[in-house]
Amino acid sequence: MASTVDSSSNKSSLLMLREKVKKLGRVPASWAAYAWSIGREDQRRAIHALKVGLALTLVSLLYILEPLFKGLGKNAMWAVMTVVVVLEFTAGATICKGLNRGFGTVVAASLAFIIELVAVKSGKVFRGFFVASSVFLIGFAATYLRFFPSIKKSYDYGVVIFLLTFNLITVSSFRQENVLPLARDRLSTIAIGCAICLFMSLLVLPNWSGEDLHSCTVRKFEGLARSVEGCVNEYFRDQEKDDNIFDKQASRDYIHTGYRAVLESKSNDETLAHYASWEPRHSTQCYSYPWQKYVKLGSVLRHFAYTVAALHGCLESEIQTPTSVRSLFRNPCTRVAQEVTKVLQELANSIRNHHRCAPDVLSDHLHEALQDLNSAIRSQPRLFLGSKHGSANSRMLIELNSTKHTTSRTALPSFKTDTASLLERKITKGDRPPERNERSTLGRTLSKIAITSLEFSEALPFAAFASLLVEMVVRLELVIEEVKELERAANFKEFTGHDHLTIDLTCKEEKRNNNGVPGSHTVSAAAE
Amino acid sequence: MASTVDSSSNKSSLLMLREKVKKLGRVPASWAAYAWSIGREDQRRAIHALKVGLALTLVSLLYILEPLFKGLGKNAMWAVMTVVVVLEFTAGATICKGLNRGFGTVVAASLAFIIELVAVKSGKVFRGFFVASSVFLIGFAATYLRFFPSIKKSYDYGVVIFLLTFNLITVSSFRQENVLPLARDRLSTIAIGCAICLFMSLLVLPNWSGEDLHSCTVRKFEGLARSVEGCVNEYFRDQEKDDNIFDKQASRDYIHTGYRAVLESKSNDETLAHYASWEPRHSTQCYSYPWQKYVKLGSVLRHFAYTVAALHGCLESEIQTPTSVRSLFRNPCTRVAQEVTKVLQELANSIRNHHRCAPDVLSDHLHEALQDLNSAIRSQPRLFLGSKHGSANSRMLIELNSTKHTTSRTALPSFKTDTASLLERKITKGDRPPERNERSTLGRTLSKIAITSLEFSEALPFAAFASLLVEMVVRLELVIEEVKELERAANFKEFTGHDHLTIDLTCKEEKRNNNGVPGSHTVSAAAE
Repeated sequence: MASTVDSSSNKSSLLMLREKVKKLGRVPASWAAYAWSIGREDQRRAIHALKVGLALTLVSLLYILEPLFKGLGKNAMWAVMTVVVVLEFTAGATICKGLNRGFGTVVAASLAFIIELVAVKSGKVFRGFFVASSVFLIGFAATYLRFFPSIKKSYDYGVVIFLLTFNLITVSSFRQENVLPLARDRLSTIAIGCAICLFMSLLVLPNWSGEDLHSCTVRKFEGLARSVEGCVNEYFRDQEKDDNIFDKQASRDYIHTGYRAVLESKSNDETLAHYASWEPRHSTQCYSYPWQKYVKLGSVLRHFAYTVAALHGCLESEIQTPTSVRSLFRNPCTRVAQEVTKVLQELANSIRNHHRCAPDVLSDHLHEALQDLNSAIRSQPRLFLGSKHGSANSRMLIELNSTKHTTSRTALPSFKTDTASLLERKITKGDRPPERNERSTLGRTLSKIAITSLEFSEALPFAAFASLLVEMVVRLELVIEEVKELERAANFKEFTGHDHLTIDLTCKEEKRNNNGVPGSHTVSAAAE
Repeated sequence: MASTVDSSSNKSSLLMLREKVKKLGRVPASWAAYAWSIGREDQRRAIHALKVGLALTLVSLLYILEPLFKGLGKNAMWAVMTVVVVLEFTAGATICKGLNRGFGTVVAASLAFIIELVAVKSGKVFRGFFVASSVFLIGFAATYLRFFPSIKKSYDYGVVIFLLTFNLITVSSFRQENVLPLARDRLSTIAIGCAICLFMSLLVLPNWSGEDLHSCTVRKFEGLARSVEGCVNEYFRDQEKDDNIFDKQASRDYIHTGYRAVLESKSNDETLAHYASWEPRHSTQCYSYPWQKYVKLGSVLRHFAYTVAALHGCLESEIQTPTSVRSLFRNPCTRVAQEVTKVLQELANSIRNHHRCAPDVLSDHLHEALQDLNSAIRSQPRLFLGSKHGSANSRMLIELNSTKHTTSRTALPSFKTDTASLLERKITKGDRPPERNERSTLGRTLSKIAITSLEFSEALPFAAFASLLVEMVVRLELVIEEVKELERAANFKEFTGHDHLTIDLTCKEEKRNNNGVPGSHTVSAAAE
């Protein structure tokens, strides 16, 4: 019996070994797949890498080809260094870095030359002292300058290069008699490096920061539109009919990604706008393109997204208005959300195509939808009576609605707020095991508060939801105002007609005739 | 008459010239004042600048002192370059950059040495081809690698240095017979540079990223506490009694700065945590300090801050519950907010002092406050009857309250949302003149929607406010849970007693006896 155990354990260990070898064999394959996925996500990455390789090969020809090397000598090293450091992903970033490098080098060389003029007439000891103290002073001043917000934002790299070049020239001039040829050669090789970089980034399949910023703004509008639509559909979804947890999770992730991209866009927007302002592309039209307007639009969109985040918070809150009550307001709310989504998509389209949006983009339909929501709320005055009458309310509602909703109240306390589910998701991803024991005391306080909360008027959470919807419409106005300002400043094409608007309307009519929850196909598609 | 005009114009032009000269004289003074203010804001900046100056002077001694120069020669240049590029503001950043630079250089030198071994045996033409193609391939691979998120986050600088060094060595080896001494000398000078940087940043008045992250987290809690308190005080402030626009603006700015710092903290937190993870300071205690927990806490705090932002949105919304209605709920709401503020401040204190917070930090007082709010809402069921009965409601309320509120409803539509006021503030700062004509059409649509909105139940906006308050308490639980996890992971000191808690309570009692709006002194202090 012992031998069978032994042989079986041997077999299992052999199998494990084979598995491990197989896994190890799979590692390079998975790496390759990962690398491939990164390139496929944005093909410009591979192209940029090819461009860098090509630029480096070009600059190394300065060493490899005999006649070129004779002219430049070892200073060709500076050209190599410039290409490695300056050639960036987008044209704007390359120009910004190249100009910073060039300007920093020139200023540093001039300053070093002046100091050299003073130092050259004095004795060795005084000269050493003079050089050391000027290095200290300039080092202090330049580093301090880097803390100035305006310098930090636009010229940080230039100051670093200034400091670098100044030190190299000043210090090496101490051991070299004539520093002028050194500075000149270095400048010329840096110029060669910069020229190669500019050629590569401006003329060979260029990537423009401005275009990135533009398409990024369009994507933000689309993401917000998806989130708003998803939020409202999810809020009014029949929770018992399709209680698939994975679907639910997927649709919530889907809503979250839409507005999160907007909330986290600040620094990215500012960087792109900064680089875009260096790009020469639009200056042929004799006016500077208003990239800062995109940043401003981004901040107004973030303001809008806070409401969407709060709306999403209503979905995730553990204090919920019963489905039966909610379903009374499904139609007007969905219509408002639909209209908001439509406006956002229209704005996205108009920005994408560089033409102005319709003057009446905030249509009467939205007005009507708000009116409908208003009258729907007014038609149910007893709902807002507070929880004293809560049970009477729900009895009334049960009579009003079909009987399938009767159990919805008992299933009410679902303790899932946004972050809690987020944390749990992280935990299930293997971050660390959940500490159940330590969380139990917290659970008790949580439930204590939740019980208190549930005594609040049943309609209170819905009131918050409706109020946020209305607030969202108001903030949409601000977004539209900002978009119109951008369009004026960027000289977008005039609005020509209502072609796509009429198409949209027919679309909507179709949806209305279908009488379902419009737009729900988008969410379900994402949930698949 | 003409002469008098002439002389007066002469006089005025002379005066203008004198003014201009005076102004020009003031420019350097204002610059100096600006520079001084930047240093006073954070004294470590000036200290850091002094440290850089000192390090550069030290490294330039390699050139200036005869015996040192004899040992190193011109390769001392690399030490200068290393100091300029590697010495960063915090110790963690310096270590991270230094190690990246060192590691990148070593890997690049090894690879270049292998390629040299292959290339050295072949003819000149083949060698040139081989070097050029290896430069191309390595350039492509390294640049592509920089797009990998994990590499980009931690090792971007290392890859750049790898590419730089590899190219410099490979290319210059083409013209130099023995590349080994070159690589060795360069490595040793870079090591000297790194050593000076590490000495300066670790031993001379060091700045720790970890400490920054810690105090930044504490400040976030304090900012949120201020914002919550300010929001609720502002919401229930008697708008007619003190209708000073500047006070209002200042208190709103004050609320905004509190939570905005939290909303915009993401990238800063991540950078600080990344650098902090390189710092050796806590490894003497034989466990790695949980900096990532701070990042996680930051994300939970951001989640909390969304509710605060929405609460602030309630203040700024143009659909407002009349003051008379709001004042009915002033006491319970203020108490909830007060308790939340207290919890936030206690958490801030416990984190600041590295000791654990009280196990019952979420006290029964908060529970009581929620109960009070609940019963306050239940005691006014007719408020939530919808606007059909709106006028009857306000009549009732007017009777309930003093007569001074009668005009509050007519003053209701104040079109100031957060961004609108922000934009206007920017405009008044001289950004550009307001375009009244173009905004008029927008104004019309705005008012159209606002009128619709006003027909909604009067209590709807207050319901949203109350609901957000409750939601905030729930999210506070998540914050507390995350703080406790941080405390466990970071081995904070055990909780010892309720000393400061009792002080807080007596404070509160005093405030209650005063019967005013507690905490309003903070807001007014900021408004001054």
